[in-house]
Parts: sequence; structure tokens; C-alpha cells
Amino acid sequence: MLYDVIIIGAGPAAWSAATYLVRAGISVFVVGEDEKSGLADASEVWNYPGFPQAISGRVLLDQMIEQAKKQGVEFLHGEVTHAESLADSEGQRANGQKFLVRMADRKELQSKNLLLAHGAFYMKANISGEREYAGRGVHYCTLCDGPLYKGKDVVVIGNGNFAAEEALQLAAYVRSVFIVSHATNISFSPEYVKALGENKIESRMSRVKEIQGDGGHVIEISLEGKMVPVGGVFIALGMAASPAFAQKLGLELNGDFVRVDDNMRTSREGVWAIGMARGGVNQIVKSVGDGGVAAVDIIKQLKGLPSYIDHT
Amino acid sequence: MLYDVIIIGAGPAAWSAATYLVRAGISVFVVGEDEKSGLADASEVWNYPGFPQAISGRVLLDQMIEQAKKQGVEFLHGEVTHAESLADSEGQRANGQKFLVRMADRKELQSKNLLLAHGAFYMKANISGEREYAGRGVHYCTLCDGPLYKGKDVVVIGNGNFAAEEALQLAAYVRSVFIVSHATNISFSPEYVKALGENKIESRMSRVKEIQGDGGHVIEISLEGKMVPVGGVFIALGMAASPAFAQKLGLELNGDFVRVDDNMRTSREGVWAIGMARGGVNQIVKSVGDGGVAAVDIIKQLKGLPSYIDHT
Repeated sequence: MLYDVIIIGAGPAAWSAATYLVRAGISVFVVGEDEKSGLADASEVWNYPGFPQAISGRVLLDQMIEQAKKQGVEFLHGEVTHAESLADSEGQRANGQKFLVRMADRKELQSKNLLLAHGAFYMKANISGEREYAGRGVHYCTLCDGPLYKGKDVVVIGNGNFAAEEALQLAAYVRSVFIVSHATNISFSPEYVKALGENKIESRMSRVKEIQGDGGHVIEISLEGKMVPVGGVFIALGMAASPAFAQKLGLELNGDFVRVDDNMRTSREGVWAIGMARGGVNQIVKSVGDGGVAAVDIIKQLKGLPSYIDHT
Repeated sequence: MLYDVIIIGAGPAAWSAATYLVRAGISVFVVGEDEKSGLADASEVWNYPGFPQAISGRVLLDQMIEQAKKQGVEFLHGEVTHAESLADSEGQRANGQKFLVRMADRKELQSKNLLLAHGAFYMKANISGEREYAGRGVHYCTLCDGPLYKGKDVVVIGNGNFAAEEALQLAAYVRSVFIVSHATNISFSPEYVKALGENKIESRMSRVKEIQGDGGHVIEISLEGKMVPVGGVFIALGMAASPAFAQKLGLELNGDFVRVDDNMRTSREGVWAIGMARGGVNQIVKSVGDGGVAAVDIIKQLKGLPSYIDHT
């Protein structure tokens, strides 16, 4: 079957777009691994409007999936390994534009349009205990999880201005915060050095080899040969997108992310990019917003309307 | 009290931004009338991810308000009649930038920053029965409510390309649709004339004087002297924003909407605009997304960080 739209990725951006598209009578197929979405790891979500009681990220994501499937979205769970435009190999766009998507089991799917929602991921520090306590004292997103540490003592592991910014943001919530840099020299810009000083945030050059907990939550880290008690650990090594699909599809990039216009269109006709695949703020609200914006644009384009009217 | 941020408006964009800001320890005050948000009138919301069962717009909005208030957001319900920059009248920015907001009861509030989330509204047709059956057979948003009319016969009241587009979008869901234009001549662009023809959508120049229902739902409209049964009525007279606040604040416009950059910053320092105040797709997901993007930018700015890093 030739789908109208294949969506690569299975996080909030994907489910938002899929829901809009299927409701407009457009055949849409979602392929990806929902458990790789950052949302799946969020222990408590307080900032997605509509849920006055915190909701677990995994439950919220499941509800998004259920909602889309209930309305007719098809979902194939699996890793996408390849995406290409058949127009390139066939030398022309037979049957309109056509794209091919290949899965890890070498199953192939085709569509007239592609929506990239494959996300980005936080860089891991590969410290012993990091994976075990992810979401239970080990975090990667200050904005998401910082407020859970009101009045606590926390550590930021990372280097450079990105780690400095994370520590400064945490300072608004926590009792104390310090930075441990695994690098061999500290490299903050003068402005960040000043801001860290004003906020009395210290940084040490050392290596955290181990994160330990009580089975339920992080309680201490190894630092300079001894165990130091901490309320929480924030890993601030930055974020990596996968520009691999963009390169295979010949899309223009914006740093590591896919370049898009205000309607989430990429540089190639028939390909849109949303959520962290196109960069920007890494928040659920922004991802679902991107999904809606792209879907409305796709609906208009597939229904052959000559102009985009801003009012709907 | 001088608030860090006053948010004008009380729809989804406002509550999303308010929740983010208060979680970051920023004092935020929401002023506006939540019942004027389009969301308050939506009978069933199927396209806001996270709710597999449809949720009423009013209930969803109440949950957003409860969530924000629970986390510390203050809310003053009332009509905002005026907003100005005190820097203009004082000739300088004492205490940083300062803004004044006045309410209908002439109560005044001051803040260091302003976030415009006052929305836009669908133009009403002022037909007898229109208000009574709003949300129960009378609708203003095809994307939101069109899918509720699968297999039904509906009418679009409006003129011009905006009405044509709404009718074409409805055609994807409904059994039949026709356009009634209250204007004295039909004014569709040639491309829309062609698309309407291909979709067998007729248009009549006449005036609908009355919408009648059975108490629960619309059942018929008056047309050319007789009552005609219809499954639903879509009013497509377009959307109006209020550029009044923007003008008072000396902001650059983009048509009827406030011009913003990718971070939702307006042309004036200390003023952001989100949701339909800045235009774009009129969907809940996009409004909450705008709110999150603006809030992250405000958090960074208020905490005095020298650069905007895209990774959080």
C-alpha cells in the first residue's frame, strides 16, 4: 500500500500530527520506537496543560498512542534504518513523489509524503548506576525535572556553557548545586563564569565513576575517592539529533537539526520535520504544537488547495 | 506588587506559559476571561494528545487552570481594557522596563514584562439561534468540529476564499456541503472556483435568517423562504484578532496579528505574544506550544543568561 504520509518516530510530535491527519481522512502510518521518546522516561509530568495531577510520561505517551489508534492511525513498532526518495533513483516522480522507508527487519514501506519526527536524544555519561536510576534521581532535562528538587542539593555533570546554563536554571529551584566536569579543562564563556560566580555555583574538575542509590532513588555519587551525598544528578552533556535521515533525503540542515519553515516544511517537497528532529525547545507542548502545524499544512497541500490561509 | 510577568488572556496559550514560568520561580499573574477562549465552547476535543476519550473544551480548560493555580499562578478574572509601557510616559525605564495593565473596573497592575495571549475570535453571523446552538450544531472551526459530521449534510455560511476553503475541508468528512453567501456577489478566486466545482460544492447567494433546533441540536435553517433540514452549520466569516493592545504598546504587526520571532518575542523588549494573538494555526496544540516556547525564552532572559541555547 502506498500511504499518503509515513511518520518516522513515535513520540508526542508524531502522535499529534498523526491524529490530525487521520481525522482529515488522510492515510497515515507511524513507524518508530515509542520507548525511545524522552517522554517515556519522564517520571512526573507537571507542565503539559490539562493534567492537574502529575502524570507519568509513560502513561501520557500511552494515552496519546491509544487516542491516535482509536481514530484510525496505523502503527508499526520498530527501528527505522533507512529513508530515501524514489524520485532520486527513478529519475522522476512516478505516482507523484514517492518515498521508501526500510525497517530493521528489512521490511519496506512506501508513501507519497514523509514526516520526520525521529527526535533527538540526551547524551549519556555512561556512569555506573546512571541507567539504573534514570528518572529516579538521574535526569537530563532541567526544565522538566528541576522543580522536583526544590530545597535539595544536586550536582550537574557536564562541561561548557551548556552545563553552566543547566546549573544556573537549577539554582532557581534547589538549595545548592555544583558542577562536576569530566573534561581536562573548564571552558565557560566569561559571561557564564560571571553568572556562576554571582550564583555561588562551584565547579570541579573530576570524574564521577559511580552513582549509587537505595534501590528507589539516588543517594550519593563517587567523587575524588569518596562517596558524597546528593539529592539528584543532572547530566548536561547536550543533545544529539540524528541528521542521518536528513542526509539520505538531501535535506538542508540547521546545525544538527533539519531546517524547516514556519509550516514545518523542509527544503524538499513532500517532506516535513517536527519536534526535536527540527530542533528548538525540547518540551512536550512544543512537539505537539509542531505536529499540529505540520499536519494542517499537509492537509491543505494534499487536498490541493491553492493557498495557505492562516485562519483555521 | 510589581510582577515579573503579566499574561493578558486566559486560554490554553496563557495557561501553558504561566505553568512553565511559575515552576521556574518567576512571579506571574494571569488576567483575562477564560470563557472567551474558543476552547471553552468546544463540545468535544479529540485532537489534543493525551485524552483518548473526547474531553469537553470547558473541562479541559478548567483542568489547565487548576493545574496552573495549583503550582502557584495567580489569576484575576476580568476584562483587560488597556496596556501601556511606562517607559514611554516616564521617559526612561526606572526599575527596569515597566508595563501597566488596566482592567474594566479600573484596577491597575504593573509588571516588568508582558505576555500577550489575548487570542482572536471567530466572527459571528448574528443569525437568530446562532448563539443558542453554538457547539450544538453551530460551529466555527472545520478542523476542530468537522469530523463530528461524518456522513451528514452541512452548510457553510460565509463568502470568499475563506468560506470556500472551509467547505472543501468539510467535504472530506461530510456527505454533502453547500455554501450560503450573505454577500451581494460571490468572490472566490479562480482556483477555488475550480476546486469547488471538482468537489461538486454549490454556492447560493441568499441570507440565512434563522437557525432552528430541537432544543438539543440544530435541525434546520431558513433559506429562501422555507426551512431546510441540515445536520450542521459552519460559520466561515473569518477570524479577528484585536490589534488594539499591540497598537497601544507600539508593536509591529503582521496583518491583524502581532509580529513575533521564533522565540515569540515582539518588536518591543519585554513583550512576547503567543497563541492567536500572534496568528498561525488556531489549534490547542499550537497555542500550548507557543506558550512553552515563550516561557522558556522569558525564563532565560529573566535569569540573565547571555545567550539562548537551543538544547533544553
